[in-house]
Amino acid sequence: MPLFTTTRRVEFIDTDMAGIMHYSNFARFTEHAETEFLRSIGLELFTKQDDGSVLGWPRVSVTFSFKAPAYFADVLEARVSVNRIGVRSLTLNLEFHRGETLVATGRLKTAYCLFLPDEPMRSVDIPDEYREKLEQYVGELDSPMD
Amino acid sequence: MPLFTTTRRVEFIDTDMAGIMHYSNFARFTEHAETEFLRSIGLELFTKQDDGSVLGWPRVSVTFSFKAPAYFADVLEARVSVNRIGVRSLTLNLEFHRGETLVATGRLKTAYCLFLPDEPMRSVDIPDEYREKLEQYVGELDSPMD
Amino acid sequence: MPLFTTTRRVEFIDTDMAGIMHYSNFARFTEHAETEFLRSIGLELFTKQDDGSVLGWPRVSVTFSFKAPAYFADVLEARVSVNRIGVRSLTLNLEFHRGETLVATGRLKTAYCLFLPDEPMRSVDIPDEYREKLEQYVGELDSPMD
Amino acid sequence: MPLFTTTRRVEFIDTDMAGIMHYSNFARFTEHAETEFLRSIGLELFTKQDDGSVLGWPRVSVTFSFKAPAYFADVLEARVSVNRIGVRSLTLNLEFHRGETLVATGRLKTAYCLFLPDEPMRSVDIPDEYREKLEQYVGELDSPMD
Repeated sequence: MPLFTTTRRVEFIDTDMAGIMHYSNFARFTEHAETEFLRSIGLELFTKQDDGSVLGWPRVSVTFSFKAPAYFADVLEARVSVNRIGVRSLTLNLEFHRGETLVATGRLKTAYCLFLPDEPMRSVDIPDEYREKLEQYVGELDSPMD
Repeated sequence: MPLFTTTRRVEFIDTDMAGIMHYSNFARFTEHAETEFLRSIGLELFTKQDDGSVLGWPRVSVTFSFKAPAYFADVLEARVSVNRIGVRSLTLNLEFHRGETLVATGRLKTAYCLFLPDEPMRSVDIPDEYREKLEQYVGELDSPMD
Repeated sequence: MPLFTTTRRVEFIDTDMAGIMHYSNFARFTEHAETEFLRSIGLELFTKQDDGSVLGWPRVSVTFSFKAPAYFADVLEARVSVNRIGVRSLTLNLEFHRGETLVATGRLKTAYCLFLPDEPMRSVDIPDEYREKLEQYVGELDSPMD
Repeated sequence: MPLFTTTRRVEFIDTDMAGIMHYSNFARFTEHAETEFLRSIGLELFTKQDDGSVLGWPRVSVTFSFKAPAYFADVLEARVSVNRIGVRSLTLNLEFHRGETLVATGRLKTAYCLFLPDEPMRSVDIPDEYREKLEQYVGELDSPMD
């Protein structure tokens, strides 16, 4: 199955008084995996154009399901798969694993948008060049979202 | 409709280079609203017992849907409603508003758990005393989750 | 002694696995106190002008000294005093107290700067109107910095 | 000069609406460099002992001086040097560089402490084994602290 993977270590600053990674940091781990995934196909999360405009991927929705605690110094493997490519939107599925243990699943829907100074952002078509690359990662992860 | 509400201001540290509140901070705003809601009925997110054990509400799953950007210095009103009370779990619905504008919706499922030193946490029944108070907030928010 | 004070509660998300507030959150508490202090005299940490330029207070340096742990649900009182007003810079002294206990001291030096699109930021004079208000808070806090 | 170095990339979540890395994230970058440095000589920032006690390095004080903005996707090199080894304390000097540009300097003083359940933490002697390793990194960085 087509997958992008990357790893990241849980840091002391990521933990909370329950002794585990605070769940808000899965947003940080997800953004890291998303950024590395986009970068691997030539895209950036946020790109300033020469004319001062910006192309980026604002978030539409996000879901996390927590399966097992993550602890300080754990190395988590993030697996990224494309759930759906819309004309102007992209939905990723994610899994976070520590060895054999599934720690969390996630789904992130983003929109490809143009920001012009002092105008509301507006969604724009994902260029064919990137669509073709993204399509190579369409597939389901092993862990169903719920 | 039964609702708990609280407000919080978007801080500079909450923003990102797109000029809006970074979405991960909705986890912070949600935890704030949840904490204030629980506190209003006599519960704490994390309570150390005299015997050294801890009662808390680990997260099971969370969903956010982003409707409009939130900006620095915005005062957001969080509205909290109970979606479902299980024997050992609690699901909250949330809405974040800036005046007339719906900024985001959220759903947070938590489990009531006991932490004993050097043992895995285990879920425990929500005491009747709190169940009765929580039931007063069961209801639907105006904005359907999607 | 001239002082601005504000309070803020330590949140669960602010804690770490040592069971105390992670020190990085004193930056958050400091920014909150600074923002409220500036707002009390009519200034904002970040102000977009009608011509698209921005006036703000980038950080020059910051020091924290930690005296006692802060715990979940503690209400900390921040005390703010002006250490020095330069032509284009402002240095604040801070103390964080929980009741009778001094939790931390801080010193924050900022510069008043103008951001023009696609130009490096440059420091500008603090207007006399604000200088006069800031001067009312010049003084030493009880706890010497070290 | 004896130096430990590591690198880390500025992430989108690290930025603020001024378009640069928010200064609070230098605490995150510093903890990362400190953790990697300690790990390189066989120490961890937080170690649970078999008897349930914990050995860690609570913060005594920290200072940062900001020299140049750090931007999204910048790869910063952290340079770590030992400023002073006390009987029970350790002071590190840090520099953060982006290529030829000095972005920030920092100084972090920590204490080696033992945490026993339900007792206040107390400082303990740094074992000779680690002291000898730390001494190899004593030295001054090129950029004076101010």
